[in-house]
Formats: sequence, structure tokens, C-alpha cells
Amino acid sequence: MNLKAHLRVVRESKWFSNLTTIIIILYSSLLGFKTLGEIENDYSLLFQFFDYFVTVYFLVELIIKMAAEKNFFDFFKSGWNIFDFIIVTVTLIPLDDSTMAAVARLFRIFRVLRLITARPELKKIIDMLIGAIPAIVDIVILMFIIFYIYAILGNFLFEGVESGLWENLLISMLTLFRILTFEDWTDVMYEGMEVHPWSWIYFVSFVIIAAFVFYNLFVAVIIGEMEKINSKDIEDEIHADSKKLDLILKQMEALQEEVRELKKH
Amino acid sequence: MNLKAHLRVVRESKWFSNLTTIIIILYSSLLGFKTLGEIENDYSLLFQFFDYFVTVYFLVELIIKMAAEKNFFDFFKSGWNIFDFIIVTVTLIPLDDSTMAAVARLFRIFRVLRLITARPELKKIIDMLIGAIPAIVDIVILMFIIFYIYAILGNFLFEGVESGLWENLLISMLTLFRILTFEDWTDVMYEGMEVHPWSWIYFVSFVIIAAFVFYNLFVAVIIGEMEKINSKDIEDEIHADSKKLDLILKQMEALQEEVRELKKH
Amino acid sequence: MNLKAHLRVVRESKWFSNLTTIIIILYSSLLGFKTLGEIENDYSLLFQFFDYFVTVYFLVELIIKMAAEKNFFDFFKSGWNIFDFIIVTVTLIPLDDSTMAAVARLFRIFRVLRLITARPELKKIIDMLIGAIPAIVDIVILMFIIFYIYAILGNFLFEGVESGLWENLLISMLTLFRILTFEDWTDVMYEGMEVHPWSWIYFVSFVIIAAFVFYNLFVAVIIGEMEKINSKDIEDEIHADSKKLDLILKQMEALQEEVRELKKH
Amino acid sequence: MNLKAHLRVVRESKWFSNLTTIIIILYSSLLGFKTLGEIENDYSLLFQFFDYFVTVYFLVELIIKMAAEKNFFDFFKSGWNIFDFIIVTVTLIPLDDSTMAAVARLFRIFRVLRLITARPELKKIIDMLIGAIPAIVDIVILMFIIFYIYAILGNFLFEGVESGLWENLLISMLTLFRILTFEDWTDVMYEGMEVHPWSWIYFVSFVIIAAFVFYNLFVAVIIGEMEKINSKDIEDEIHADSKKLDLILKQMEALQEEVRELKKH
Repeated sequence: MNLKAHLRVVRESKWFSNLTTIIIILYSSLLGFKTLGEIENDYSLLFQFFDYFVTVYFLVELIIKMAAEKNFFDFFKSGWNIFDFIIVTVTLIPLDDSTMAAVARLFRIFRVLRLITARPELKKIIDMLIGAIPAIVDIVILMFIIFYIYAILGNFLFEGVESGLWENLLISMLTLFRILTFEDWTDVMYEGMEVHPWSWIYFVSFVIIAAFVFYNLFVAVIIGEMEKINSKDIEDEIHADSKKLDLILKQMEALQEEVRELKKH
Repeated sequence: MNLKAHLRVVRESKWFSNLTTIIIILYSSLLGFKTLGEIENDYSLLFQFFDYFVTVYFLVELIIKMAAEKNFFDFFKSGWNIFDFIIVTVTLIPLDDSTMAAVARLFRIFRVLRLITARPELKKIIDMLIGAIPAIVDIVILMFIIFYIYAILGNFLFEGVESGLWENLLISMLTLFRILTFEDWTDVMYEGMEVHPWSWIYFVSFVIIAAFVFYNLFVAVIIGEMEKINSKDIEDEIHADSKKLDLILKQMEALQEEVRELKKH
Repeated sequence: MNLKAHLRVVRESKWFSNLTTIIIILYSSLLGFKTLGEIENDYSLLFQFFDYFVTVYFLVELIIKMAAEKNFFDFFKSGWNIFDFIIVTVTLIPLDDSTMAAVARLFRIFRVLRLITARPELKKIIDMLIGAIPAIVDIVILMFIIFYIYAILGNFLFEGVESGLWENLLISMLTLFRILTFEDWTDVMYEGMEVHPWSWIYFVSFVIIAAFVFYNLFVAVIIGEMEKINSKDIEDEIHADSKKLDLILKQMEALQEEVRELKKH
Repeated sequence: MNLKAHLRVVRESKWFSNLTTIIIILYSSLLGFKTLGEIENDYSLLFQFFDYFVTVYFLVELIIKMAAEKNFFDFFKSGWNIFDFIIVTVTLIPLDDSTMAAVARLFRIFRVLRLITARPELKKIIDMLIGAIPAIVDIVILMFIIFYIYAILGNFLFEGVESGLWENLLISMLTLFRILTFEDWTDVMYEGMEVHPWSWIYFVSFVIIAAFVFYNLFVAVIIGEMEKINSKDIEDEIHADSKKLDLILKQMEALQEEVRELKKH
């Protein structure tokens, strides 16, 4: 057994992915503890050491996974590998500039996301969600068109109001997003009705179209994709039954043919 | 190949609908940019030119589509064509009156909606929603009856309250719509309970009946229509299987008949 | 054809139920117009006349329906008839006492509900909802238990708070109902956390158990009942297919028997 | 019939579980009445007596159920029995310390939960929910990861804000939970936008990812589990049909074999 095969065994082994999981959980916990300000100062050296260790561990893990591939570039054929590669490499870049260093430090938070790549059952849900995008994209485009028209209309009607919620297109869209979540939407409406008494039509129609109809259409697609996975087995069985019926029909005809031949004797 | 056939090729071609899509997106973006006030003044000439261009383009597109039809009036057989026709022609009407001109200018926002007619995949979702109306209409009527009764009752009970949320039937219905979205509904309730301490029954029963039961019934219909499209294939297969079974049964009988005849020999 | 048969023809005729529908809609509109205070005084005589007319019409309609029954008491076998009977008769009781008269006048609002009995398609939805009660009742009991325990616990923990939202069991349950709709629930929580800093566990657990899990269970049952109606056809077809298969199996055996007999010859 | 068999008859009898149900309901009502402060003093002796009675009754019931088992330890094989055992025994512990006594008294509220163990139809729903946990656990883990990353990010970005909503990891997660329920989430956003104008991306992305996508995924699983129970019958029928088809195919072949033999004659 050569090195590549050895590495492949390591890569596929349960203990390796479990070890990675534990290290990420420990690292995530430490990131959390750091937010409790006082503790940070006492343990900052420990944290700094653990941070280096995780950086090295992730790098070694990445190299093992790359080396285990038959062809080096095969590694980049999987979206999850590219995702890992970016998260691991970005934090490797040495930074002197303090602003950029802060951003790089912040970027380490996304290492928590590596928990997803380490657990196949979590990857499956994300893959399912990505698979649902084609089914969702048209509804999202339609929602965007509705948002866009209402935002321009809202900006046209309520540009001058004191709260400044309709100042320009972007802010108007943010206000409409807020209305979509029903968050204090009547406050926005009552303010608008002071300028145009009939503008409740604008708000009520938006709530009905965007929140009642399109939001639920969006939810229906997500639920539908989830159910598709559950009902796959039964659909496969119905397909199989259909094929069995075709087979029965064919044999039936063959049998009739034979009986007819029998009669000729 | 005559002119009509040529026009039909143009109408069905991918590049033609893609060109229309791009022009609408550009025009929509410009409408959006106009809301960022300062920019408007510098580019207003450019915008005015583009506005004329889009008006002409839409007109030409409409004429091509009309001319491509075998019979001129066939064009108006499709609801989508009528929709396009209205959006294109309304902005053509010359207006001197400044108020009407402002409305006409506002109407141009709806040109963004033409994006739906240009993309068949978006048209399909809207067609599905329109197809769901018969299934929804009875639930909407029932909801309206519930709203109506609660609005009259609310007006009767809380007409005098300071906030004026129950002043007349229309305002009462708007207040009930607000309660349906759970938007600060307890504020309305606490105000009502100051007048009639037992009026929490009115509000809680409305929330349970309208928001918990009927709103979810409405959502269930939308989700059901969405699912119907997904489960159509499997239902068709079950129908086909049923017919195959009938065929097998018939052949079975024919076979038995033949075997019986064989026995008589 | 005797009188009973004549009445039955009237009762079943489309124009009779349409006439009733129109009268109810007109009467409902008038009830609505009355809320716009100023109009009331000018038209009060007209309204009073129409009110008498509707009272008489409803009475006549009720008598026709009763007389059309073979046996008088058969009329009360339908829940919808009892519902109509109560609404029609209650407003017939003459009242001198001004307070009771106001209540009787208020009761006339429920005449709008007679629109449901006049339209079979609306009756069907209500019947479906009543049919869903057995499926929902256990979830409602479980929700009530959760509400009850949390209400007593809430009253124990936060009885003294300034807002008085946990004063006694009933008010505590109303507060919990408010939290179920997410209406300013964090205000209630932040107030509670001032008394018991760890009480966020109480609120978050209630939101997760009652709103996330049980509310959605409740919604799932409603959606399920709605779908059951839609999927009934396909289920019936699968049942029919199953029976056809049994028949084929039986005929198969008969055929084999006959072939075996043939061989004996 | 020995004692064990007698006890088993008692345990399975309808009147025994109905008696338990009634006692729990009475006890629960009394717990509720106690919250109406004034009443407590007058009836406190009665309540104390009833409390003793319920304690004894629960103990006797527990002993009957234990004694009815073939083997004593079989009793603890059911999770519901362990649940009952804990609720009954904890309130038996004698407590002198006043703080602990208050906690023990509070613990008696959970006796209301024994209503679930007394009614099989309620137990079934809870069992179904417990059965849904494996299907939900991965989505909950993913949601936790999203919460965790956003909480650390939120603490990093908005730690200094006046409201103190992002003070540390725990408070940040509570704030995010609040945003998940859309409760005044724009107030939190507008405060954040004062520090970082572009932080609306943080809030809007969280609402879309956590509330729109993952919350609905969570709901979809609950609805799916509920539906699984409903659609079990039809799935079983399809399985049965599939087996019938296999049988028909096998008999078909046997028949063909026999016909072929017939021909050889």
C-alpha cells in the first residue's frame, strides 16, 4: 500500500472527521468565551496558542485531503473542498495593517462553518437547499419585481415623510422588507396615510401580495423540496409497479398467442 | 416565406425576448437611479431620451406581435397580450394637464411588470396563481364575512375610544387586518378592555378564528396548488396504471373465453 | 302535486337561494352604512322598514323550509337548520327593556352569518373545519396543559411586576397567548428578567414549545385536513386499483384451474 | 386469579384512568384558583387536605402499576413510567429549608403534566414529537451554528451600543432569537446602523437565512412527520399492491409453463 492509499484511509476514517469536529467545537467555544471580556485578558496567551494550533491542523488536514486525491486538481471539483480551501487559506495571509488584521481576525469566525464540512449529515441539508434554488429562483425574481415597483412607488408617494423611511430606492426596499415581516408596519402606514389618506391601499395590497401570497409560495417550495426527499421511496415504488404492469401485459399477449396456437392444432 | 412568417420567427426567437428583457432591466435600473435625487438633474436628458426609445421599442414590439398573428383579433385572445397592450398604450396618450401627466409618468413604473410577460417561466407562476383563485375564492368570502361581522361589532363596542381605530366600518376593517398580522394587536386589545373589561374575548376569538384558522386555510390552499403541480406526474402515472389494470382484466376474460372454447373441442 | 311538493321545489330552486343571498347582502351593506354616523339619521326610517322586511322574509323562508319537510321534526336534524332557527327566532322576541333591546339589536349582526347557510360552497368549508375538530382536539388539550402550567409558573414568578401582566391565572394565560403571537413578547421578558435574571429560559422555552412546535402542529393538522380533500380522488383510485388486482389474482387462479383440467383430458 | 392479575385488571380498566384524570383536573383547577390571592386564605386548609390526598393517591397508583408488572424492573422500561415516578417521588421528599420547600411546592405544578400519562391519545402526540427528533436534530444543529456565528459577529460589531443587546455571546443569542421571531427587530437594526451604516446586510441576511429558510425547514419537518402518520395507510396499500403484482407475475409464468406443456402433448 502506497502513501496515497494510506492518506485515503485516513481521510475516510471516522476518527479523523470526529477529531476535526471536536477541534472545531473547542475552537468555537473559545471564540464564544472571548466575548465575555474579562476572561480574555487572563487566557489570551492560551487562546493565541490554540489559534496557531488550529491554523496548522486545518492546513495539515487540507494537505492530507489534497494529497489523497489521484489527481491534484480533482480536489477542486467538489464545492465543499473549495469552501474549505478558502476558509483555511484566507487566515494564512500575513497582515501588518491593523484594519485588515481586524478583518482577518473576524474572518476566523467562519471557521465555525467548517463544522458543516466535517459532518456529512449537515452537508446533506445544505446540498438539499442548494438543490432547491432552481425551484425558488423564479419566485425570488417575481418578489424582487414586486419589491422594486412598490419601492419606486413608495419613494414617489412618501419621499418627504419625517421618518425618512422612503428616502431612496434602497431605503424604500429595506422598509418594504420590514413590512414583509409585519414589523411595526402599521406605524409606517399611519405615517403614509397622513400624506395620502388613501395610501392604505398601497400597504394592504403589498401585505397581501408580498407577505400572504409570495412569501407563502416561497415557503411552499421549501416544504415541497423537503417532502420530495420523503416521498421519493413511494414514487419509486409506483414507478416499479408501473413497469411490472407493462411486463404483465406483455406476457398476457404472449400467453394469448400460445393459446391461439394451441387451438390451431 | 412571406412577411407574417418572418415576423413569427422573430417573435418566437430567443434573442428577441432576451433583448426585450435587457431593455426592461436597463429601464428599471434607470427608474431606480432616479430616486437618488442628485443624480437625476445631471442625467435627465439621457433619461428622457431612453424613455422615448423604450416607448418606441415597446410599440414596435407590440406591432410585430400583432402583425405576426394570423388574424388581428387573435392577439387579444391572450390575457397577457391585453396586459401588454394596456401598459404600452396608456403611456402613449399625450397629456398637457400637469396632474394627469404626473400620474402618466407614475404609470411608467408598471413597465417593469412587462418583465413578467417577457419571461415564460415567470408567466407560469402567475398563471398558476390565477388558476388557484377558484380554490381560494370561497375562503376569501368566508374571511370577508368574519371581517365584516367583527368590524360592525368592533364599531358598536369601541366607537368612542381615543385612538379612533373603530371610527367607522372601513377603519374597523383596517384595524382588524392589522390584528390579523399580529401587529401591536395587544395595544388595541388593552385599549378596548378599558371600555369593556371582557372584550378580550372579542380579540382572542378573532385571532383564533381569522389568524389561526382561516389564514392558515388560505396558506394551505396556496401550498396545495403548488404541490399539485409537483405531484401531477405521479398522479398521471397512477391514472395510467389504472387503465393498464383494466386492460389486463379485459384480456384475462378473453383468455378465459379462449381456454373454455379449447375445452369444448 | 300537493303543497309539500310545491314547497320542496321552491326550497331547492336556485332563484330562491339567490334571492335570500341578495337580501342578506343588501341588509349587511345597510348594517355597514349605519356605522357612518351622519347617514343614519336621514335614512333611519328606511332602515327600520328594511329591518322589518328582512325579519318577515327570514320567517317566511324558515316556515317554507319547515313545511317542506316530510316530518316537521326532520327540520331540526340538520345543524345548519338549528343555526338558522336560532338566528331568526331570537330577533323576534319583543323587548321593552332598553339594555336587552340593545343586545337584541346587536344580535342582528349575526344575520350576516346566514350568508353561509344560503351558499352550499361556504357551508362545505365550515363542515370541513368541523370535521377537523376530532383531529385537532388532542393538540388543543396539550396546548391548554402547556398554557396552564406556564400560567401558574408565570404567576408564581412574576406576580408582583408593575405591568400586572401576571396578576392571576386568567391574565397570565392572556399574556401567554400574546407571547404565542410574538406580540412585544420581549418587553414582557425583559420585565421578567429584572425580577429573575434567568427567567429568559421560561420565555424562550415557551416560545419554542408553544409557538414553534405546538402552533405548527396545529397548522399541520389544518393543512392536512385540507389536503385530505384534495388527495381523496387519488386515494380512491389506489383503493380501486387494489381491488382490481385482487380480481385479477382470483381470475388467474380460475384460469390455472381450467388449464389444469384441460391437461387431464 | 392471583393478586398480580387483579392489579393488572385494575391498571388496564377505563374507570381507573378516568378517575386519575378527574383527580388531576380537580387538583389543577385548585392550583389555578390559588392564584386568585383572596380565596387562598379561606380555603387553605381544604387545599392542604386535597394536596395530601393527591400525594397519597399518586403513590398508591404508582405502587399498583409497579406491583402489576411481572418483574419489578420492567416498570422502568417505559419512559412514561420513569416520568411518573420522578413527578410522584420528588414531592414526597420532606423539606425543612424554606427556600427548598418553595421549590418543592412549585414542583407540584408539574403534576398537571401527569394528565398526559393518564390519556393515551395525548401520549401518542408526544411520542410522535419525540419520534420526530432524529429528523429535526441536524436542522437544529445547523441553526445553532448560524446563531453562533451571527452572535459572535454581532458582539464584535455592536458590543458598545447603548441598549446592551450585544454585550456578550449569550445576550447576543437571545437578541438573535428575538430577531428570529421578528419582534421589534428593526429597532435593533436601526440602532446597529447608527454604528455601522451597512449593518442592515447583517440583519437582513440573518432574517432570510434563519427565519425564512431554516425556521421553515424546521416547520416543514414537523408538518412532514404529522403527514407521515396520515399517509401511512395509503403507503401500506401501495406496498401491498406491489406484492400482489409480484404474485401475479409469478403465477403468469407458471401458467405459461403449463400451456407450453399442454402444447407438447
